[in-house]
Amino acid sequence: MNGKEVIENHKKYNLQSWSVQGSLDPKAIEKTDNIYLWDYDGNRYTDMSAQLVNMNLGHGNKEIGEAIKKQVDQFCFIAPSYAAESRSKLAKKVIQLMPDNMGKVFFTNAGADANENAIKIARMYTGRNKVMSRYRSYHGSSFGAGNLTGEPRRFPLEPGIPGFIKFFDPYVYREKIHFDSEEEAGTYYVEKLREQILYEGADRIAAIVMETITGSNGVIIPPKNYLPGVRKLCDEYGIVMICDEVMAGFGRTGKMFAFENFDVKPDIVTFAKGITCGYVQLGGVAVSSEIAAYFDDHLLSCGLTYSGHPLACAAGNACVDYYETHHILDHVNEVGAVLGEILEQLKKKYQIVGDVRYIGLFSAIELVKDRKTREPLVPYGRDPEGKMGKIIKMLEERGFMTYSHENMILIAPPLIITEQQLREEMEKMDEVLKIADETMR
Amino acid sequence: MNGKEVIENHKKYNLQSWSVQGSLDPKAIEKTDNIYLWDYDGNRYTDMSAQLVNMNLGHGNKEIGEAIKKQVDQFCFIAPSYAAESRSKLAKKVIQLMPDNMGKVFFTNAGADANENAIKIARMYTGRNKVMSRYRSYHGSSFGAGNLTGEPRRFPLEPGIPGFIKFFDPYVYREKIHFDSEEEAGTYYVEKLREQILYEGADRIAAIVMETITGSNGVIIPPKNYLPGVRKLCDEYGIVMICDEVMAGFGRTGKMFAFENFDVKPDIVTFAKGITCGYVQLGGVAVSSEIAAYFDDHLLSCGLTYSGHPLACAAGNACVDYYETHHILDHVNEVGAVLGEILEQLKKKYQIVGDVRYIGLFSAIELVKDRKTREPLVPYGRDPEGKMGKIIKMLEERGFMTYSHENMILIAPPLIITEQQLREEMEKMDEVLKIADETMR
Repeated sequence: MNGKEVIENHKKYNLQSWSVQGSLDPKAIEKTDNIYLWDYDGNRYTDMSAQLVNMNLGHGNKEIGEAIKKQVDQFCFIAPSYAAESRSKLAKKVIQLMPDNMGKVFFTNAGADANENAIKIARMYTGRNKVMSRYRSYHGSSFGAGNLTGEPRRFPLEPGIPGFIKFFDPYVYREKIHFDSEEEAGTYYVEKLREQILYEGADRIAAIVMETITGSNGVIIPPKNYLPGVRKLCDEYGIVMICDEVMAGFGRTGKMFAFENFDVKPDIVTFAKGITCGYVQLGGVAVSSEIAAYFDDHLLSCGLTYSGHPLACAAGNACVDYYETHHILDHVNEVGAVLGEILEQLKKKYQIVGDVRYIGLFSAIELVKDRKTREPLVPYGRDPEGKMGKIIKMLEERGFMTYSHENMILIAPPLIITEQQLREEMEKMDEVLKIADETMR
Repeated sequence: MNGKEVIENHKKYNLQSWSVQGSLDPKAIEKTDNIYLWDYDGNRYTDMSAQLVNMNLGHGNKEIGEAIKKQVDQFCFIAPSYAAESRSKLAKKVIQLMPDNMGKVFFTNAGADANENAIKIARMYTGRNKVMSRYRSYHGSSFGAGNLTGEPRRFPLEPGIPGFIKFFDPYVYREKIHFDSEEEAGTYYVEKLREQILYEGADRIAAIVMETITGSNGVIIPPKNYLPGVRKLCDEYGIVMICDEVMAGFGRTGKMFAFENFDVKPDIVTFAKGITCGYVQLGGVAVSSEIAAYFDDHLLSCGLTYSGHPLACAAGNACVDYYETHHILDHVNEVGAVLGEILEQLKKKYQIVGDVRYIGLFSAIELVKDRKTREPLVPYGRDPEGKMGKIIKMLEERGFMTYSHENMILIAPPLIITEQQLREEMEKMDEVLKIADETMR
């Protein structure tokens, strides 16, 4: 097929995620390398979102490709009830990367089913039913993961599942209360959560599920003392603490897992994306040794045909090795510092920039109509004038590919981006913000 | 790692599907080919369940392997919002394989998320909430698919999702009523379903979800006029008819899709397993042109990072081509006829065999204590004396690998099995049934 046919058949036969199908205008991609994509006309685009924040090691990584090919030569698949080398190896590696309280891994195909199974495991382990998660969150769009999700993408799944309870994130920038310090803010949110736990019945709550750092909903980084505070609540009430590291895990924040930034040990960690960078689909649920031991003599009533898919695990082993041998974390911290500086400069330069939030190579620019009132550039859940779409389009015209969510632009390039590449791309962002600042507020 | 280490690390770090972890004794597989697996000691086992009824084209298929490697060289992944050749090609192929009422495909990672999205699509399209599915069924174990599921594997997901309603399968062998003909049975089940639809409120029901032929729960083949009858009910009441072809699709029954055996056209078809034979994980939801058109100007509120994963689609293209170029359907019909004869002979020979059910290379042997009363060999949901486990173990000792469910043994080998290979393996089944017949009733 040529590029035109690829696009025609995409539109004719394929239903595209989260889209009104009649208005699609997709680009066909012919080749990819490093942080770049090319269409069939030879136009180059820079992947500034690592696709869906999954291609942490960028495109065309040879080590991962070779590992996949080698696994094809052994076998692509063997059922979860057999032991397979790539699966055993990766399970061991993941646990060794995790804090010392972690014991075993249940592998899935992606993040949504990782979260599905995490809830099931927490319910079985505690014998409790309720599950708490946050409004500004995305955990997937299957019924379980989608009912954890707090934003509008959960609405088609309603009426929801009994016992799924929402609480508010520590979204300090949009809080009505003024805090004198980060610590005060953290304490406030923990105490509000405690209050809600008591009103829900502490001994009825199986789990609290949080993206360690809220991803799609705006890279919301909690106050330093927030997660340790939630950890204490979980300990106090026997609640399983589940950190969703699907987006933030595997180096994105400059640590292997985002919770390491806050010195906490979750009971369950869900992961996906960066474990294989999406070269082959893989997700998983890591559980503490204590939870793992429970299933030594209780049925783990979780299962899927492709749990620990050997081809996916082979890609996972290659990725994990690559993060380590190529010192990706150090690189993220170095280049991430530059990203932070650039973002702060943009905030100084343009009134349309209400807030910039960044950690490692995970960042968002929050756009406002008015910096003082903090009124978002577009109202929640709507964009009547298509402003955000126009901004994304202007970036795209300059070869800067990313996506927006509400009034926020996500910037989360492959972790292998160089300082020079980053500076080049952020020049484009500067240009576009200048136009937006002059024309859209 | 050597075989011993593979097993040790599997048990130490990996949580295995549907298992009490303390009692695991997995085999480590070193290589696979055709219908065979070998452990690290060189012992050969025959895969008589096509793993989890997914490896329709058996192990080590070179065409699929080469297609995967070739796709690695283009790119492994590009997000669903881009057009990619392997994805566009496969979407077109799938629709061309389907009946002429089908329009578009939404790709997922596997069967569970295919069913999750099928329900969402039916609800969005109809604006109705209730979803009907059957007791003897398995549709996956995430919250949505698991709530469709009618057997005990759904219990950890309860309290269930509001609006998920169960009805009984056309399980003639275990029916309390005597039917004079297949047609009478079909009519009975359709009329019972109509009655239940009326009591649930016909205009509140979005979808009826059925495995076209119930798989894990015992290869329950409906009377010829059953599915056409359900089709008429769906038309009459504006209900979306969803056929779950995850297990039965892609040649398993001797037709490309199982519903072709009954001359019906569903509105939505979910598929997985055989589309790629599990070489890379892939599932999907095919929807009618009418449903597809609805989403031309309505938001398709479905999405997942890996929708239409290019590497998976490359494997899918190779599989679909292989089914066609190697005339797999003809082969299934030929060898399937032999399987049917053998199963009928076993039923004649052994009183422990209550019923045999088969279509193509999809079959089950239902074991009973007493052929007249039809009392199952083990009570529903339990196996206090471990009888079924012992039977599976005896088969395994002879190199015949499959699994059981309740009082049933599944036989669903790769579709490439030769008549000679089949006869060889079924000799082992004969031996084991003889022992069981003499010692277990």
